[in-house]
Amino acid sequence: MNLLLLEEGDLIAPDRALLQGRRLRHLHEVHRAEAGDSLRVGLLGGAMGEGRLLSLEADRAELQFSLEQAPPAKLPITLLLALPRPKMLRRVLQTVAAMGVPRLVLLNSYRVEKSFWQTPFLEPAAIREQLVLGLEQARDTVLPEVVIEKRFKPFVEDRLPALAAGTLGLVGHPGPWPACPRAVDGPLTLAIGPEGGWIPYEVEKLQEAGLDPVQLGERILRVETAVTALLARLF
Amino acid sequence: MNLLLLEEGDLIAPDRALLQGRRLRHLHEVHRAEAGDSLRVGLLGGAMGEGRLLSLEADRAELQFSLEQAPPAKLPITLLLALPRPKMLRRVLQTVAAMGVPRLVLLNSYRVEKSFWQTPFLEPAAIREQLVLGLEQARDTVLPEVVIEKRFKPFVEDRLPALAAGTLGLVGHPGPWPACPRAVDGPLTLAIGPEGGWIPYEVEKLQEAGLDPVQLGERILRVETAVTALLARLF
Repeated sequence: MNLLLLEEGDLIAPDRALLQGRRLRHLHEVHRAEAGDSLRVGLLGGAMGEGRLLSLEADRAELQFSLEQAPPAKLPITLLLALPRPKMLRRVLQTVAAMGVPRLVLLNSYRVEKSFWQTPFLEPAAIREQLVLGLEQARDTVLPEVVIEKRFKPFVEDRLPALAAGTLGLVGHPGPWPACPRAVDGPLTLAIGPEGGWIPYEVEKLQEAGLDPVQLGERILRVETAVTALLARLF
Repeated sequence: MNLLLLEEGDLIAPDRALLQGRRLRHLHEVHRAEAGDSLRVGLLGGAMGEGRLLSLEADRAELQFSLEQAPPAKLPITLLLALPRPKMLRRVLQTVAAMGVPRLVLLNSYRVEKSFWQTPFLEPAAIREQLVLGLEQARDTVLPEVVIEKRFKPFVEDRLPALAAGTLGLVGHPGPWPACPRAVDGPLTLAIGPEGGWIPYEVEKLQEAGLDPVQLGERILRVETAVTALLARLF
């Protein structure tokens, strides 16, 4: 937690907050904070700045803060991701939030196991929890938008062309494709497949929607690693 | 497991292996393999190729294989990493092996908690297990060398200058440094700090050993994400 992220519900005055639960425990157990300590804070969806612990007890902490700094810029990207397995999903959500992706589409694919769609980690509160952890890690305050598309074809045929219009559209896919470009200017739409990759039909449909396949070399990376590697190379 | 990695001890003939344990369970449970199936295989430290399951039973499988393909090239880098917390260490070892880092130095730092050095995950067999998982993921056969340096100063003063000689030396560190370069030619020595970063004294000592600080933007990334992002940008 490199940023203490406050929510509207924590505020007891425009410049004061009351903390309980996970963030309080973190202050005690990880930061080993004491009353009087200064901390970096941010308001979810708002600005960032400094806070000072007015009091810190076992069951609550009170904090005074001032927020003057804008959160870091997001990357100009929409990321489409074949739904990863539940454990990976949680980490990917943190990574996506930490890296500054503003919009994530979780998409079905032939190689996404049907059971993955049943995971409680897809519930809005569970998604939000992981995104908040990513924001706290990276020092950002703005939640990415997460869209869930359980049907590949209607999404790719009906909605993706408009989403990708005016952007550089790419599909990360192993094979005899051009190498993924570097340091791209301007907005991007990037699709990353499931473990085992997109099937050829899906690559064709993504191409029809305006996305060009690119590859990252012969090594097969886990989804989380591929997301980070592609973003780091593209921006 | 995108590559079935065989070890010398598995071989019952130059072109035949007997599988038990984790890899056998994986064939049953994840691959749902059957006798006659073809698989990608590699010999630890050797070549890669195709294998065919001659038999597959609950407690053993027999495989015939031929190996004609060289493993993928490694990155020309020595990676120095402040020892991460045990859970992160395991994932980082997988990532390092998957990304093709040939030499990793796990190093002490002021902000590495002393207890991290006590973890059983630092035992050679535990390190090897995670590296093998990374190789199986990425389709590589060559284990990275992992060196453990529990004392920062003697390593950085006495051994690092020779290790970094003739390479581009970089320290990933947040702050007012030049941006991390892209698509570097030639060998690299890269140092990545602990959660919370190197302390100024450590940055100075690394600079004296020939490493220049570079930064990756204002977002603070987890160690595993920073490793992937820096490697993807540098190569």
